Amino acid sequence: MAAAAGLWRLRKPLVAAFSSATAAGAGRPSPPEELTVRRQAEGVRNIVLNNPRKRNALSLAMLQSLREDLLHDVKSKELRVIIISAEGPVFCSGHDLKELTSEEDVKHHSQVFEICAEVMTLIQKLPVPVIAKVNGLATAAGCQLVASCDIAVASEKSQFATPGANIGLFCSTPAVALGRSLPRKVALEMLFTGEPLSAQEALMHGLISKVVPEDKLEEETMKISKKICESSKSVLALGKATFYRQMTQDLDTAYKMTTQVMTDNLTLRDGQEGIEAFIQKRKPVWSHSQDKKK
Amino acid sequence: MAAAAGLWRLRKPLVAAFSSATAAGAGRPSPPEELTVRRQAEGVRNIVLNNPRKRNALSLAMLQSLREDLLHDVKSKELRVIIISAEGPVFCSGHDLKELTSEEDVKHHSQVFEICAEVMTLIQKLPVPVIAKVNGLATAAGCQLVASCDIAVASEKSQFATPGANIGLFCSTPAVALGRSLPRKVALEMLFTGEPLSAQEALMHGLISKVVPEDKLEEETMKISKKICESSKSVLALGKATFYRQMTQDLDTAYKMTTQVMTDNLTLRDGQEGIEAFIQKRKPVWSHSQDKKK
Amino acid sequence: MAAAAGLWRLRKPLVAAFSSATAAGAGRPSPPEELTVRRQAEGVRNIVLNNPRKRNALSLAMLQSLREDLLHDVKSKELRVIIISAEGPVFCSGHDLKELTSEEDVKHHSQVFEICAEVMTLIQKLPVPVIAKVNGLATAAGCQLVASCDIAVASEKSQFATPGANIGLFCSTPAVALGRSLPRKVALEMLFTGEPLSAQEALMHGLISKVVPEDKLEEETMKISKKICESSKSVLALGKATFYRQMTQDLDTAYKMTTQVMTDNLTLRDGQEGIEAFIQKRKPVWSHSQDKKK
Repeated sequence: MAAAAGLWRLRKPLVAAFSSATAAGAGRPSPPEELTVRRQAEGVRNIVLNNPRKRNALSLAMLQSLREDLLHDVKSKELRVIIISAEGPVFCSGHDLKELTSEEDVKHHSQVFEICAEVMTLIQKLPVPVIAKVNGLATAAGCQLVASCDIAVASEKSQFATPGANIGLFCSTPAVALGRSLPRKVALEMLFTGEPLSAQEALMHGLISKVVPEDKLEEETMKISKKICESSKSVLALGKATFYRQMTQDLDTAYKMTTQVMTDNLTLRDGQEGIEAFIQKRKPVWSHSQDKKK
Repeated sequence: MAAAAGLWRLRKPLVAAFSSATAAGAGRPSPPEELTVRRQAEGVRNIVLNNPRKRNALSLAMLQSLREDLLHDVKSKELRVIIISAEGPVFCSGHDLKELTSEEDVKHHSQVFEICAEVMTLIQKLPVPVIAKVNGLATAAGCQLVASCDIAVASEKSQFATPGANIGLFCSTPAVALGRSLPRKVALEMLFTGEPLSAQEALMHGLISKVVPEDKLEEETMKISKKICESSKSVLALGKATFYRQMTQDLDTAYKMTTQVMTDNLTLRDGQEGIEAFIQKRKPVWSHSQDKKK
Repeated sequence: MAAAAGLWRLRKPLVAAFSSATAAGAGRPSPPEELTVRRQAEGVRNIVLNNPRKRNALSLAMLQSLREDLLHDVKSKELRVIIISAEGPVFCSGHDLKELTSEEDVKHHSQVFEICAEVMTLIQKLPVPVIAKVNGLATAAGCQLVASCDIAVASEKSQFATPGANIGLFCSTPAVALGRSLPRKVALEMLFTGEPLSAQEALMHGLISKVVPEDKLEEETMKISKKICESSKSVLALGKATFYRQMTQDLDTAYKMTTQVMTDNLTLRDGQEGIEAFIQKRKPVWSHSQDKKK
């Protein structure tokens, strides 16, 4: 992890690491209507966290908006890959602390955490790959969001931290995603100290899959997205669901299940089309459907 | 992952990444009789994938030959370590696509996938360490083969990819091995895009355990092999079986089981011989047998 | 792994890698009374393995002393973090081989392995973070000790090895900790060959969480410790216990459990104090107690 002075001495990172009305939003105009912005073209859906003044905090409203953008018309053949990015220097600062004070009741707190966990696990259940495109600081549940995506590309300046312990709220839900993405000691040092990982450290330790200079972030993310768009949606959907399923199984069960999936994949129209196109040295023409080969 | 143009634009890597009669074998002489070559000397068995013209595709016949070479006289004290390497610039290109078209029936497809999974899991069940010695491209089930070995040494030019999605057949069985060898995001980016990992990336992420210049590959692999040959076969066999067994258990169960194994290990003739030799500052004389200390 | 000549040819590392009366302690004065030294100040407990002439071997007596130091008054609010370090060039050489010869009976061997596993698992059950501070060679159960801590900081010269197979006693219990801290291939190469990982390799592969120059080791370890001391003990205790618990669960169960823990955390006095202090831009005043917010 990057050497960094304690958060209480270095006020700036602390402020950047969390969000609350008092710390960041006081006296400014109200947030825009659209907490997230959804754009889609040529198979690629961009979902942009769009509340930079609140450091893209995952408020209840933000989580609901994100969920809607993830689920919208998700079975359409027009949708082939989702990219989650953010406006402003902070990718996402985690929960909105204002929603977690004792002024709100326990039921409200539970609701926030529940929809958060729902969105994080939803990402893995979607039939298309979800890419986090990170250009800045991702903290607490914001770091969890990155960890929960299928693929994550980050600019060199990006940083990743789980500083909940510093403010008395241990990042126990982010720890679920971190513990499955990072070596245990790296995850625990982050969770106990709140100190950030640099983008290069996050890559080395497996939290993200690629680091590029900031001015190449768009290009690299689109390259991956276009590569994904060249494949059959139904084949990728089958593969993604199978991947997460087999990861929870023991080796023999996993091989038994995936061996059947391989055979099934070959019976798909797009399964045979791909192999035939390859042998015939032509580009495949995908149906993107789950139809069986006639 | 290495930046690389899409497979459809860069025809060469695509051809290299898969095998079929049409793409690689048409009009050439029939493959040699020996799909794999087995040599053994001083405890070290070399199994060489020997069908470079078909990019060492894991055809049904190749898998059967590999299985036979792995299992041959495996309990002999003369066998102490197995090295899997390959002829030609492609270590292994995965399944022979010709065997997976609709010209073959579903039963045949199943048979191919079943023996493939059998060979991959067999490696972990053998009583000796199995080393992948990679000098080139390993793709799809070929990448799975590397991931399934106990140890993997690769030359710097080696690359690792799972491009099944590109031809409509998601690498779901390779994903079982990749998902247990690589961080989830790295595995999924490989599986969704088909883009290759460089040898250095494969090392950083844990798919392989060592990278060396091409002209040191033989030396390094033999150094590891000779080190293994200096130990007792029965002790390594006990250790290997125990390692894979405890990895499926929770921490307390794993410690309970391995604590008993440590005690049992000490009752082996070679268990006491090793400690006595160390204390007496002499080289141990192994029996390699599972006999208990008299 | 670092290239290194075989242990039998390079006598020095072998001697360093294990301990026995014959190899290391013969003809010297008896070991000091205190096998471990415990010091505590400002919330930080230092436990120092203090038998450098025996390479800090984990003899039965050493393990008992370490266990006592770990457990002493562990619930006190004065204790906030534990650092395990060692006197001399060898951090810890694993079991005392003298205790594992056939001169001792099987029951004695079992006792040694059982208390060893008990201490290793105890570390994760303690309510405070435990940091390994490594400056030298950690082998066999000594390597396991490092792998079992929550956080590990090492100097650049440190090395990590599990050479049990070389002396006929496969490191099956250390393998439990290694297999959960390192990629499988890296762990198996260490276990089969006994060759050491360098500190940088150990960092890259996740066995440790930080590497620093030797003259920065004290500073870096104390920086992490002080950061931990700035947080509430009860919040860190809840977070640590929750982390290890959720790691054994499937994703949905883990999220369900941790979502409840987050809500519970907010009801702690220190949970609300932290958030209020942040919003009020002041330093929090922790109770360190498990009391609920009135």
